[in-house]
Amino acid sequence: MLGRDNLMRADKALKLFIDKLGITRTEEITVRIANSLGMVLSDDVVSPENLPHFSRSTVDGYAVMAKDTYGASEGVPSYLDLVSEVVMGMEPDFLLNKGYASKIPTGGMLPEGADAVVMFEHVQVIDTSMIEVLRPVAPGEHVIQKGEDVRKGETLMTRGHRMRPHDIGACAGLGITQIKVYKRPTVSIISTGDEILPAEATPALGQVRDINSYVLAGLVHEAGGMPIVKGIYKDSYQPIRTALEDAIASSHMILVSGGTSVGTKDMLARVIQDIGHPGLIFHGTSLKPGKPLIGGSIDGVPIFGLPGHPAAVSVCFEIFIYPVMEILSGYKKKHSVNTIPSVSAQLAKNVSSSPGREEHVRVILEERENGIWAVPVFGKSGLITTLVRADGIIVIPLNCNGIEQGEIVDVRLF
Amino acid sequence: MLGRDNLMRADKALKLFIDKLGITRTEEITVRIANSLGMVLSDDVVSPENLPHFSRSTVDGYAVMAKDTYGASEGVPSYLDLVSEVVMGMEPDFLLNKGYASKIPTGGMLPEGADAVVMFEHVQVIDTSMIEVLRPVAPGEHVIQKGEDVRKGETLMTRGHRMRPHDIGACAGLGITQIKVYKRPTVSIISTGDEILPAEATPALGQVRDINSYVLAGLVHEAGGMPIVKGIYKDSYQPIRTALEDAIASSHMILVSGGTSVGTKDMLARVIQDIGHPGLIFHGTSLKPGKPLIGGSIDGVPIFGLPGHPAAVSVCFEIFIYPVMEILSGYKKKHSVNTIPSVSAQLAKNVSSSPGREEHVRVILEERENGIWAVPVFGKSGLITTLVRADGIIVIPLNCNGIEQGEIVDVRLF
Repeated sequence: MLGRDNLMRADKALKLFIDKLGITRTEEITVRIANSLGMVLSDDVVSPENLPHFSRSTVDGYAVMAKDTYGASEGVPSYLDLVSEVVMGMEPDFLLNKGYASKIPTGGMLPEGADAVVMFEHVQVIDTSMIEVLRPVAPGEHVIQKGEDVRKGETLMTRGHRMRPHDIGACAGLGITQIKVYKRPTVSIISTGDEILPAEATPALGQVRDINSYVLAGLVHEAGGMPIVKGIYKDSYQPIRTALEDAIASSHMILVSGGTSVGTKDMLARVIQDIGHPGLIFHGTSLKPGKPLIGGSIDGVPIFGLPGHPAAVSVCFEIFIYPVMEILSGYKKKHSVNTIPSVSAQLAKNVSSSPGREEHVRVILEERENGIWAVPVFGKSGLITTLVRADGIIVIPLNCNGIEQGEIVDVRLF
Repeated sequence: MLGRDNLMRADKALKLFIDKLGITRTEEITVRIANSLGMVLSDDVVSPENLPHFSRSTVDGYAVMAKDTYGASEGVPSYLDLVSEVVMGMEPDFLLNKGYASKIPTGGMLPEGADAVVMFEHVQVIDTSMIEVLRPVAPGEHVIQKGEDVRKGETLMTRGHRMRPHDIGACAGLGITQIKVYKRPTVSIISTGDEILPAEATPALGQVRDINSYVLAGLVHEAGGMPIVKGIYKDSYQPIRTALEDAIASSHMILVSGGTSVGTKDMLARVIQDIGHPGLIFHGTSLKPGKPLIGGSIDGVPIFGLPGHPAAVSVCFEIFIYPVMEILSGYKKKHSVNTIPSVSAQLAKNVSSSPGREEHVRVILEERENGIWAVPVFGKSGLITTLVRADGIIVIPLNCNGIEQGEIVDVRLF
């Protein structure tokens, strides 16, 4: 039985867990950049070349020597002779001499001799051989210089960076078509319970279908991992031990859910303690729902024993499993900013809480005339529908008796 | 040439676009629930049965008739005789009579006659045949009643709902293993430009590699769509017309990027106008970057012509393409709350803006002693690295001259 006194604070339990787990990462693999979205670099990306590798115009206009335009105005324009046009995608086959201008498209390569571009809008065309420039340009104006975007040898992204669409684009631009990343963490999901049947089965009285394997697989997938649903095991020492030992060889993390019958949680703790080191790390935390959470690790593979209630599964996932998956995937946070979508709302009803518990309360968002309100979904944490109806969760901190109606709360959206 | 006067406001252009596009959704398909994460229901999910389909205990304890415990206290306990235990996953093969109690595990089925459960903590065991109950319980206490989670015939989720992990779990619990959803939108990506080469190629002087196909494929993927990269086409009427006509037959949406050379944008607009109805819807908006954006639609397939600059691609995606993808995917917003991760920060430098433009400025987040600061990344919108270095974007509204250093801004995170 878990008393309130010996429950570890969730933040302390997580810190202890991460310390005991040690530095552990998934394997380094090489992937094509098109398949790297959301993956984490296992090595720095260093540019093999300059980008662009030639100076380009950023506007449609005329390539010029900037000094030829000094002092130009509508009243006293600079007259420049036209030479051959710059053709898109081609290296100009001519030099630009003093006193000359060359028509150039956006993205076109500056001819040798030119150091700036005058926009069409600031030019008066006299005839096919001459233009008037109506405003001066400075050297480099309307030009992206060779290497201005990325210099050869520059470190573009560092190990631990998570690939976003424009990061992939930058690699493509530099001709880097494969990169080294950490493998997506493989997370084995084990359901336990003598009363649990697969979703396809028709349960007799006393039996229920497996919900948590599906919830966990979805959460693992959203967090960038590869869920492996291992199936349903009886709530006895040997089946659970065999399932865990099998899974350790092929997993970066193991999640065991269920085991709600008397003494089962203690049994899972015993299995974890028996099969390897360091074994059990914590047993029970100050989370509500989520109190009976078990954390352990065998040979660098983190193992969590989750309470059977779906609401508890969600909370334990966010507070414990997600951060550990980030570690496994090699992700290095650049800053401590919360990147989970959240929104401020007024609390629609008083919510009380027991001090000594970090309580997570599901809420529905309602738009009313005077703003957005968070309506608490009260209901037993064993009800899956309290989660289906909810839009997000608010957290009542450890040593707080509750939050009053009308107070502003931060709703973390599902 | 797009003047400032004839630019449509971005919000008006989007509204006009959606109106002209009409009601259009991707095809309805049936998927296994395990594959439905992030997909949108094309039909309501109605429960075929009660969940749970029997009354269950929520604690480890003793099933009792509540009235047998009325008035019980530590001083004057209720004495109850023990009958056969409830076994996990089994229907009890006995009745509970007045004056009796039956040991029951969490999740166990209540025997007929019992209407409440007393927790172990509130019981004193006398011997193998008798217990003392030290506190009264009310009828239904520590019990999830048959159908309390979901009633048979109840609508659990409605058309337009996007499947989250616990929604999938709820379906599993009800034995619903397949659901009807809208297909993920298939989005064809066409790159244009005489100077553009594939990422694998080595560009000569004047040539550059395709960046935008990769950026767009990543953005489409993140938005729940299926990107189809069609390749690179010459900036001429016929190749672009052929590419568009081919793509229309097999796409829910078409994105054309590039075409930065003189007059190309007008040519794309002409192609869209020429090949079907309603054709071109808008040409140019008040976004910066993103001004030259083109929007059109042929036979219900939305088509966007994107500026070539990577920063402009990102902005146009968020403001136009993402909302249209949500429409195609059948998603119905429950509320207007912004669900994109964002964070409040203090602006580290003055940012000026031209009135008449909705300006999107990339920023880097910095944690300083006095909070989080947003440092603007100044740089030409043609530079991909301004996006790689940035953590998010701030928006300077249409009729605003800028934002001053120290003001609080809302940073939408990448």
